[in-house]
Amino acid sequence: LLQRLVEDFHESEMGDLLEALQPEHRHRLIELLGSSFDFAALTEVDEAVREEILEELETSTVAEGVRDLDSDDAITILESLPEDEQAEVLDQLPAIERVALQRSLDYPEDSAGRRMQTEFIAVPPFWTVGQTIDFMRDAPDLPETFYEIFVIDPAAHLLGSVPLDRLLRSKRPVTIQEIMNDEPDRMEATQHQEEVARLFERYNLVSAAVVDEGGRLVGTILVDDIVDVLEEEADADIKQLGGVKSDEELSDTILYIQRSRFPWLFANMCTAFVAASVIRLFEDSLERMVALAILMPIVASMGGNAGTQTMTVAVRALATRELGRANAWRIIRREAAVGVLNGMVFAVIMGTLAGFWFQSMEIGFVIGLALVTVLFFAALGGIFVPLTLNRMGVDPAVSSGPFVTSITDIVGFFAFLGIATAWFNL
Amino acid sequence: LLQRLVEDFHESEMGDLLEALQPEHRHRLIELLGSSFDFAALTEVDEAVREEILEELETSTVAEGVRDLDSDDAITILESLPEDEQAEVLDQLPAIERVALQRSLDYPEDSAGRRMQTEFIAVPPFWTVGQTIDFMRDAPDLPETFYEIFVIDPAAHLLGSVPLDRLLRSKRPVTIQEIMNDEPDRMEATQHQEEVARLFERYNLVSAAVVDEGGRLVGTILVDDIVDVLEEEADADIKQLGGVKSDEELSDTILYIQRSRFPWLFANMCTAFVAASVIRLFEDSLERMVALAILMPIVASMGGNAGTQTMTVAVRALATRELGRANAWRIIRREAAVGVLNGMVFAVIMGTLAGFWFQSMEIGFVIGLALVTVLFFAALGGIFVPLTLNRMGVDPAVSSGPFVTSITDIVGFFAFLGIATAWFNL
Ligand SMILES: [Mg+2]
Ligand SMILES: [Mg+2]
Ligand SMILES: [Mg+2]
Ligand SMILES: [Mg+2]
Ligand SMILES: [Mg+2]
Ligand SMILES: [Mg+2]
Ligand SMILES: [Mg+2]
Ligand SMILES: [Mg+2]
Ligand SMILES: [Mg+2]
Ligand SMILES: [Mg+2]
Ligand SMILES: [Mg+2]
Ligand SMILES: [Mg+2]
Ligand SMILES: [Mg+2]
Repeated sequence: LLQRLVEDFHESEMGDLLEALQPEHRHRLIELLGSSFDFAALTEVDEAVREEILEELETSTVAEGVRDLDSDDAITILESLPEDEQAEVLDQLPAIERVALQRSLDYPEDSAGRRMQTEFIAVPPFWTVGQTIDFMRDAPDLPETFYEIFVIDPAAHLLGSVPLDRLLRSKRPVTIQEIMNDEPDRMEATQHQEEVARLFERYNLVSAAVVDEGGRLVGTILVDDIVDVLEEEADADIKQLGGVKSDEELSDTILYIQRSRFPWLFANMCTAFVAASVIRLFEDSLERMVALAILMPIVASMGGNAGTQTMTVAVRALATRELGRANAWRIIRREAAVGVLNGMVFAVIMGTLAGFWFQSMEIGFVIGLALVTVLFFAALGGIFVPLTLNRMGVDPAVSSGPFVTSITDIVGFFAFLGIATAWFNL
Repeated sequence: LLQRLVEDFHESEMGDLLEALQPEHRHRLIELLGSSFDFAALTEVDEAVREEILEELETSTVAEGVRDLDSDDAITILESLPEDEQAEVLDQLPAIERVALQRSLDYPEDSAGRRMQTEFIAVPPFWTVGQTIDFMRDAPDLPETFYEIFVIDPAAHLLGSVPLDRLLRSKRPVTIQEIMNDEPDRMEATQHQEEVARLFERYNLVSAAVVDEGGRLVGTILVDDIVDVLEEEADADIKQLGGVKSDEELSDTILYIQRSRFPWLFANMCTAFVAASVIRLFEDSLERMVALAILMPIVASMGGNAGTQTMTVAVRALATRELGRANAWRIIRREAAVGVLNGMVFAVIMGTLAGFWFQSMEIGFVIGLALVTVLFFAALGGIFVPLTLNRMGVDPAVSSGPFVTSITDIVGFFAFLGIATAWFNL
């Protein structure tokens, strides 16, 4: 009955079911379903859940389940196993599959070689459309889905590709050579998956060939997996900008999350400490004029928010490759101008408010001047920090935040308290 | 020569070229290229650039250029025109295309009906594979690319779909009915594009049928446009979390950006003002003990960062539909626990540091107690604010930030200054 019920499930629905279950019930369900459990469902769950399930399963069960999968899905599962179990599973697979999977695993993590599937259709250029279609009708072991077929020479060098709709619309006697696209979309197996995803996006691809250093066809990447890569990368950037590790998932444990969020908070504590030291420089001024203590967080927080706005735009534009050497200076000038403009607007608003609040035009003037200064530096910090980190090869999404807010805090406190001390002769 | 040069360009390369040019040169290039300019390039540029170019072009040029496009690309261009010019362009199109485009435009903005293309292949269920292939070989006006054909009844009700690879692998005498997928992936024309994109992602689709309220096939959506939607939505969420309007683009003018970033900064000014009022309640304490003024920004900033971490995770999980009623309570409890744990860790670290810095164990104790309090409330605020906004039908990515940081600021200042006042009897 259970098997009948589960048969109609899509693999991602099965994945959701697994995630919703108590951890101890997950592998039981899989064992209960036996061979009617589609291991593709394991590619649709969070990594923490996948690792936890795989830990409980026998390597022979995993080997059996992985056999029927496209190689890219099999790789996703193998990646979640500790190395010794990976080897055990590979040992229990037929030689052809073992070699294909091992080759994928030899490519670096998150590379095109790891994301590709080794199931594809490749034909020689001299075949006719008719021959090709007959071949596809009769071959028992074709990939589950495909949108183009590839054309190769005897040494497996990629010569071209033919989209299925073109194949369908061509007459049977026409040769493949005549209708093939002779500059097929090709990715290097060592290319990073994010790079590959950007190319899919840019050229509106649904599938692409993956070639090795020698230009030999080794696999293909389909768009559904690229959609996952894009989501994964966007997810990582959003989390990192918010100070959360990119691999944090809803299914992680409390202790794991506490430890993974600690470093960002610790970095923030250090920068807050530096900012507090700046404040301490003006201890005497603060003692003489408590209004400064009340207003200074406003200046710092306006700076922090303006800096975050600029930084967000810069980090995102770097990620999508829209910001580069060609337009960096234009964007820097633009952000600086926006900073000064908003600085002046808020100088007037905040200056007036503070002036009334403390019955002192002079306090209003001082906070206004401080706001222009801090919003200008916030803009510069917001753009230069990501650009510099990016040039140094550090991912700007991960570490721009603490730098930018420490700049705005320090400039904010220094400008406001410094100007006030000078103005009021404190 | 220019035409020869540009002929090999992909539409997205042409788009990049247009964006790199000075605004006044953009429409000149298009006019120079005349009919060899592919208007699809206009779907690959920023909206601000598209609007600016279209403003300079004659409606007859636009009508001419839009005619050759798939209807979804034509819609993207029409959406960037003011309403009166939209009507003028539509008037200059042949009736069939006008009706199709008008129908798309009648669906709400960002709906499946706006994103769909009306070019698709639909056949009756009783046709054979052979008939279908012959039809596709001979029909002159087929869509440029397609990955499945649809099966409809005489009243255009969607009955099924056949992926191209299945069509290719079937023998000619087989009828379509026998090989069709009778539960084809279908989207409602009024569905929001983000909803559609999530379904593509979930079920690994490359194309889907779009049906009207009556279940009649009105169009199809292909995955390359869904990739753009996913990027657009991720982009919007990242920007909104950073306090930037979702439609801000690198090509916007200084004044536009200044004005679009103002409201967020203004909201932040108001909350900072409230936080400053909280500080003012403790004016006397601050006058008597300046160390409080120096340390209070540390407490507020730790709270702000911890709150942002939780909020980021919550907003993202809501956007990807991973967080819902089923697991909300578990996540709330988890975040609260993480907050208390990190609060205790930082209470010890920061308490020790502050104790040494001001040579007072008591100050260390007070700041420690304040940190536990603020990190606990930061966790609650970080999860409850997005959940509440979401339940109220407000996009949590847009407006969670100011609420969360105002909660953490107010709780932070209140807890630290309040505990200190009570402890030291200030
Ligand atoms: Mg998931
Ligand atoms: Mg296999
Ligand atoms: Mg695209
Ligand atoms: Mg795949
Ligand atoms: Mg997949
Ligand atoms: Mg990234
Ligand atoms: Mg932020
Ligand atoms: Mg662009
Ligand atoms: Mg047309
Ligand atoms: Mg998917
Ligand atoms: Mg399209
Ligand atoms: Mg498009
Ligand atoms: Mg959104």
